[in-house]
Amino acid sequence: MSRVLVAGGTVVGAEGSVRADVLVDGETIVALLAPGTELAAAAAAGAERTVDATGKLVLPGGIDVHTHMEMPFGGTFSHDTFETGTVAAAWGGTTTIVDFAIQSKGSTLGAALDAWHAKADGNCAVDYGFHMIVSDVNDTTLKEMDTMLGEGISSFKLFMAYPGVFYSTDGEILQAMQKAADTGATIMMHAENGIAIDVLVAQALARGHTDPRFHGVTRPSALEGEATFRAIQLAKVAGSPVYFVHLSATEALVEVARARADNGNVWAETCPQYLYLTDDAMEGPGFEGSKYVCSPPIRPAGHGAHLWRGLATETLSVVSTDHCPFCFKEQKELGVGDFSKIPNGLPGVEHRMNLIHAGVAAGHLSTERFVELTAAAPARLFGMYPRKGVVAPGSDADIVVYDPAATDTISATTHHMNVDYSAFEGQTVTGRVDTVLSRGSFVIDGGRFVGRAGHGRFVRRGLNQMLR
Amino acid sequence: MSRVLVAGGTVVGAEGSVRADVLVDGETIVALLAPGTELAAAAAAGAERTVDATGKLVLPGGIDVHTHMEMPFGGTFSHDTFETGTVAAAWGGTTTIVDFAIQSKGSTLGAALDAWHAKADGNCAVDYGFHMIVSDVNDTTLKEMDTMLGEGISSFKLFMAYPGVFYSTDGEILQAMQKAADTGATIMMHAENGIAIDVLVAQALARGHTDPRFHGVTRPSALEGEATFRAIQLAKVAGSPVYFVHLSATEALVEVARARADNGNVWAETCPQYLYLTDDAMEGPGFEGSKYVCSPPIRPAGHGAHLWRGLATETLSVVSTDHCPFCFKEQKELGVGDFSKIPNGLPGVEHRMNLIHAGVAAGHLSTERFVELTAAAPARLFGMYPRKGVVAPGSDADIVVYDPAATDTISATTHHMNVDYSAFEGQTVTGRVDTVLSRGSFVIDGGRFVGRAGHGRFVRRGLNQMLR
Amino acid sequence: MSRVLVAGGTVVGAEGSVRADVLVDGETIVALLAPGTELAAAAAAGAERTVDATGKLVLPGGIDVHTHMEMPFGGTFSHDTFETGTVAAAWGGTTTIVDFAIQSKGSTLGAALDAWHAKADGNCAVDYGFHMIVSDVNDTTLKEMDTMLGEGISSFKLFMAYPGVFYSTDGEILQAMQKAADTGATIMMHAENGIAIDVLVAQALARGHTDPRFHGVTRPSALEGEATFRAIQLAKVAGSPVYFVHLSATEALVEVARARADNGNVWAETCPQYLYLTDDAMEGPGFEGSKYVCSPPIRPAGHGAHLWRGLATETLSVVSTDHCPFCFKEQKELGVGDFSKIPNGLPGVEHRMNLIHAGVAAGHLSTERFVELTAAAPARLFGMYPRKGVVAPGSDADIVVYDPAATDTISATTHHMNVDYSAFEGQTVTGRVDTVLSRGSFVIDGGRFVGRAGHGRFVRRGLNQMLR
Amino acid sequence: MSRVLVAGGTVVGAEGSVRADVLVDGETIVALLAPGTELAAAAAAGAERTVDATGKLVLPGGIDVHTHMEMPFGGTFSHDTFETGTVAAAWGGTTTIVDFAIQSKGSTLGAALDAWHAKADGNCAVDYGFHMIVSDVNDTTLKEMDTMLGEGISSFKLFMAYPGVFYSTDGEILQAMQKAADTGATIMMHAENGIAIDVLVAQALARGHTDPRFHGVTRPSALEGEATFRAIQLAKVAGSPVYFVHLSATEALVEVARARADNGNVWAETCPQYLYLTDDAMEGPGFEGSKYVCSPPIRPAGHGAHLWRGLATETLSVVSTDHCPFCFKEQKELGVGDFSKIPNGLPGVEHRMNLIHAGVAAGHLSTERFVELTAAAPARLFGMYPRKGVVAPGSDADIVVYDPAATDTISATTHHMNVDYSAFEGQTVTGRVDTVLSRGSFVIDGGRFVGRAGHGRFVRRGLNQMLR
Repeated sequence: MSRVLVAGGTVVGAEGSVRADVLVDGETIVALLAPGTELAAAAAAGAERTVDATGKLVLPGGIDVHTHMEMPFGGTFSHDTFETGTVAAAWGGTTTIVDFAIQSKGSTLGAALDAWHAKADGNCAVDYGFHMIVSDVNDTTLKEMDTMLGEGISSFKLFMAYPGVFYSTDGEILQAMQKAADTGATIMMHAENGIAIDVLVAQALARGHTDPRFHGVTRPSALEGEATFRAIQLAKVAGSPVYFVHLSATEALVEVARARADNGNVWAETCPQYLYLTDDAMEGPGFEGSKYVCSPPIRPAGHGAHLWRGLATETLSVVSTDHCPFCFKEQKELGVGDFSKIPNGLPGVEHRMNLIHAGVAAGHLSTERFVELTAAAPARLFGMYPRKGVVAPGSDADIVVYDPAATDTISATTHHMNVDYSAFEGQTVTGRVDTVLSRGSFVIDGGRFVGRAGHGRFVRRGLNQMLR
Repeated sequence: MSRVLVAGGTVVGAEGSVRADVLVDGETIVALLAPGTELAAAAAAGAERTVDATGKLVLPGGIDVHTHMEMPFGGTFSHDTFETGTVAAAWGGTTTIVDFAIQSKGSTLGAALDAWHAKADGNCAVDYGFHMIVSDVNDTTLKEMDTMLGEGISSFKLFMAYPGVFYSTDGEILQAMQKAADTGATIMMHAENGIAIDVLVAQALARGHTDPRFHGVTRPSALEGEATFRAIQLAKVAGSPVYFVHLSATEALVEVARARADNGNVWAETCPQYLYLTDDAMEGPGFEGSKYVCSPPIRPAGHGAHLWRGLATETLSVVSTDHCPFCFKEQKELGVGDFSKIPNGLPGVEHRMNLIHAGVAAGHLSTERFVELTAAAPARLFGMYPRKGVVAPGSDADIVVYDPAATDTISATTHHMNVDYSAFEGQTVTGRVDTVLSRGSFVIDGGRFVGRAGHGRFVRRGLNQMLR
Repeated sequence: MSRVLVAGGTVVGAEGSVRADVLVDGETIVALLAPGTELAAAAAAGAERTVDATGKLVLPGGIDVHTHMEMPFGGTFSHDTFETGTVAAAWGGTTTIVDFAIQSKGSTLGAALDAWHAKADGNCAVDYGFHMIVSDVNDTTLKEMDTMLGEGISSFKLFMAYPGVFYSTDGEILQAMQKAADTGATIMMHAENGIAIDVLVAQALARGHTDPRFHGVTRPSALEGEATFRAIQLAKVAGSPVYFVHLSATEALVEVARARADNGNVWAETCPQYLYLTDDAMEGPGFEGSKYVCSPPIRPAGHGAHLWRGLATETLSVVSTDHCPFCFKEQKELGVGDFSKIPNGLPGVEHRMNLIHAGVAAGHLSTERFVELTAAAPARLFGMYPRKGVVAPGSDADIVVYDPAATDTISATTHHMNVDYSAFEGQTVTGRVDTVLSRGSFVIDGGRFVGRAGHGRFVRRGLNQMLR
Repeated sequence: MSRVLVAGGTVVGAEGSVRADVLVDGETIVALLAPGTELAAAAAAGAERTVDATGKLVLPGGIDVHTHMEMPFGGTFSHDTFETGTVAAAWGGTTTIVDFAIQSKGSTLGAALDAWHAKADGNCAVDYGFHMIVSDVNDTTLKEMDTMLGEGISSFKLFMAYPGVFYSTDGEILQAMQKAADTGATIMMHAENGIAIDVLVAQALARGHTDPRFHGVTRPSALEGEATFRAIQLAKVAGSPVYFVHLSATEALVEVARARADNGNVWAETCPQYLYLTDDAMEGPGFEGSKYVCSPPIRPAGHGAHLWRGLATETLSVVSTDHCPFCFKEQKELGVGDFSKIPNGLPGVEHRMNLIHAGVAAGHLSTERFVELTAAAPARLFGMYPRKGVVAPGSDADIVVYDPAATDTISATTHHMNVDYSAFEGQTVTGRVDTVLSRGSFVIDGGRFVGRAGHGRFVRRGLNQMLR
């Protein structure tokens, strides 16, 4: 084990920022020290290495609670493995991902967990946890929701979309929520009315509307607002918390705000693509629009500004990525002639921190709120705080030294995700990751990746720490 | 044909009240005359009969747009026939009912209409129309929604409750709404989340919670609010009007108010039972509570006051009865030991006018609003205005001479509905029907029923006249 | 006295429309008759004149409850006399105006009433009433608010703007509202925060911002929303009704909607200028912008669309004009070099009916709502119903035969108001006044003015009939 | 200077809690150390004293941003001096107060600041800052708002109540807010419509309604809601932040919530008396009710529950006390026979921490939120973070060791405030202050006061750190 001192920087937390030196011993942060004090000098003297963070921010490592590595989809897989995906995450200052294990219909949660452990174990460059997608709600899986807690899986995702695949009925959702109310688990919800959407999709295809842009047209924002309100009411009946994944629409935001003012245990995340992109992207030349096909779809202009405001006013609690990369060639192209066959998802895990920090530069958010949205809140909501999500004594030494003034341009030619395009090609961002430590080990150092697959460990998570 | 002059009264409409004599010739109102004028004197001279309405209100005959006569339910039928039901309606000042024809699953709308015509034809004491309940939404019934318009059926009811019986999926609802958007038909909605409710019902029964009061417990108001919002969003996507039947809950009221302020073609009715009763009724001794079992259920105290306010502030547009009478003996008793088997419904067609007029006396509503809620608005919403719903030249001579100061007490011992109890037993009301004309014929005259089965005719209705 | 039959038209009321012949005897409507009936034939035979209204609308004469004829302002007067102003009103289908008598500071309400009677008596072409502007709220004027009721003055206007002129403090407003709560009188409110506005005006002038457009800049819509909410709260404390004049801003609309949903006795009017114009008008070349200077100011684009929706959804109850015409030459020009010296007000009394009917053609409103906003609701709110505001037996024979399909273009070259410009120059409207009767006398007939100054009589008004 | 180690406790911040030892060197926190580490052992070895915080919370010292020590009022003074008041504060775990310097009408802000420095200097047991009450808004005082920033005074309080005393007109408020918008200063607002209130007070007294309870009756909550909305609109026009002091009413809470969701720089505090007491208190026997006379008044039941929810859902940002103690004898008694002469104010500085922590025990708030409301947020809003409001390296060593499980009962017989009654007499609270350090010096130690007048120093404050 080694001692590292990160010296001279500004340590940022959700509540505020302080000038402090951070001493790491082995995998753990062991002290925050006022610079220039006797103890700080002693720490520097005893450190094997001192990272000079003068003029830099010292951030808790980013936590991306919504990724899909190697996700099976229609005979193919999302194109990042746990290795390539976590390496890309590290490049972007994210030191923990929470990926979704997926119960196969007819199988068990246990089997799904085993399968995902098998994929991730020994392959990850940074730490990782799992949520569980419950594809069948039945007596067996409801019981497994208990045992999963012991496995460090405290959050369960349900779908109001994708009938025949992941879709749960309102009755099934209610039962899973009742279970969550009993145990303290968190229900995560994909809130779109998939039953109505499937009618619109079939009608569009019947009319020959097959281009990528019809993906957006057939998933109107009113149907996300609807499903969001519905899930909130079901959660109210069950007495359960509910967390909305990838909220994209003003209509949904309004419902979350109403529920939160009414004191409910209701939270939502959004993703960079909903903040930065508009549905014009799906109208690109040729089949280019397919690159931007994800669900919920990228919305028309106007929604994004509301989402930025929702982040600032605390209606939204987290920014994740819904990282689910499919290459344009051979993967997105599966949907040529039928938009409904385009694999849904965008790459994003690498650029989340910079894209949200760019919102600080643009005046949307404070630096503290940036840290809350990308690290502290996800840690608390998903039962990892203060092990993760904060620079504090006793915490895992997941630390990012961040240059808030540097600027970069995002491009597929330079990114590290294993996918042949970027959804943010040419986007300029303010802020750059200098150095990344994961549990005390250097992963990014001086612009080089110095980590290794297998360093990352599974994080057994506890219950939601923001329940009220 | 005969001439009748209703003289000396105050003619009330939704907009205002005027002193006028009303001349009826045959089935039709032919003139409104300023009292004391030459023409009024001539009219009096030419009239075969003059009804002295001095000190009385002259109202358009009441219109109850929500009745279920002889409705099949689990091997039994609601206990009023079209004859007994329309006689009771007439006693209460209602001269038009709109009953629900019910498509049998697997059959056609046409067959349903034929069956309901067969029940009603020649048996009604006052005029009647039909809405159509669409039990199956499919290509055939969607096409029949066009042809039904030619038959005078312009409103189609769907259910978000009762899976396996009347329930339509959100996709089916969307398709029916798209049809309505094309044709101008009105979608009527029973808005309760039946899928979630069925889970709660099964759980209650499994716990041995079989008493009538669990009917209310298992249908929480949040699930009516939820379904109401959902239907509004589906209607928005389809571009269709939507009319909510029997709105009972504050949560649903709030959603209707939001939608109306947002300019949507959204309306709702409530019923006297939701205004006057509370869920305590379902806790009655023995099996008495079953008398009050209807869906949505009677709500806890508090909802009723909000509904009265909703009537005053125009969030709610209509008061109907959802008249669906089952005798306590042998019918309600089918649910002894299992509340879910209690036939749902209350008797009410006879007392709607007096119960709502009592709200005038209590200061909740103006007399004009009372007329709007019970006659003018239902006529306009369901395509009968100005034939029905107004005392005006050219209108059907459906006239009620009403004493606003008289008081009465409601009781099963004196009512005319064919059912062995009253949901409003002992309730005192202010206001009494003196005289009723239906298309120029006396039906109630001096406290006696002088009408006849067979006088009532089918009303071919046009489209909603309140669309905006 | 003569008999006139208006035959073959569609009589429109707020509630609905009916085909009926209207018989006038002397000053009064004596019958509404179903066309083609024996009685209608008899009426036609006995009529001295029959107006053929086939294909036309038969409307209650318009009521404009907000005019300022011959209003003193800074040494000049608004440029229409009661004669020229009521002739112009008649041309536009308005048969009743309610003008504002103005208490001079230090004088009495009685003196003001006498003065306004003196101006109007014998000069009006159509009927007229008065509201009373209370410039001083003190023991004397509070007592006079009682005696004024006996004079047919039931509405009292207060100002939250114009400190030193009409402005009342919140304490004075509260006292006047308490009086209104006692007597049933209606408080009318000019809701702008004049104290704050005067600071902004002084600052603008100090910066050399003297052009007309700074009139708008210094009266931000937030300060109308503020004053509106404030008056609603004061009315709540006092238990008084309140009616907002010339509501212009989304922020104010929102507050009225909130208050109405909360069941308050709160109403508001808007005016055509706020529906059709935007603040660009004040930026016109040279001093042209001064033509559009009124208070509240014409708002930026966006507000108008919200106001149209407010008219449709019944947040707004009335359309008046705030007719207060100043010629561009010599009058508006008083403000060259200092926008705060521009006489405030626009001409409008002549075109209100056509401008709002154009909203029917544009799909904003139904024909019935048009009648409600321009005649029925003002009559009820200001205690004139059913004498005014409705075509009904016993009502004053104030009747407009209106061609809903004709189109015209508004221009100062053709208008009849005594002012040298039109705020709606070049605006095309759909709908044209064919014939106007005022208390049974023809005023406009076949495109000619056939009335006379002195025909119009003072209308003694009763209390607000829409209180709930 | 001495070294102190606070060992074994749970350090609580707004964002979360961590197990850490806290090393103090002199006046400053120099390190947070993971317990059991080498460095922690070294720190313990080098410490002159170790406080065992095992099982305890380690809190940042409380910050009470609303006190009135020795405040002149109608010939008398609030009964705590800076000495007695800050000693009482220390007993309660509050280590910083921000008191209000009051500009005398006609004098200057500078003179007020001098006067308050003179009162406080050398007398305080804990640190203190000043806000400035601006009694006259004029060119001189507006300029002084600039120079005050250099004196460490960054917040300026205005009154919408108390005409003739502290009251500012809306125009004056607007000007002060424009100044704040320019400089970044924060406007603090007493939001009650004093002009209307004075009318109600005069009317009550004229009716002989002189008892203490009429203090509440004449200050209805609608007039706090009104003033709150008004100030928000003025702040919007000016582009200024605004902070509402002692928010007491649901109506005001609703307006703050609306403004915050709309992204404004709007915050509010409430006080324990509004959370715990109801207006029944003012109805006490004899003149007892006067003990509870403060402004805004204690509200009827119902408001308090909404305020607790507002604290939880982040509509409210701070809990202060508005500590302004007057003895019952001789002081409160000045108002016998005329409630308007009762000195306004309650004692409270001593019990704020325990009363709010009791809300944690009651399930209203998390421990972290308790710390945010009582220390972290006030520090950030009033420009003292991270010097105050947080336990972090470099921060002032203002530390409270707090036993969250102990219970106590509040009583005037045991409290340390210099006043002869307690507003919370007999109230049981959960949580007890064990040890208090102020800038590294022990003030409360083992249940004894070991501090001294004169230890406390003036805190020069910077600008609001929560602006967005």
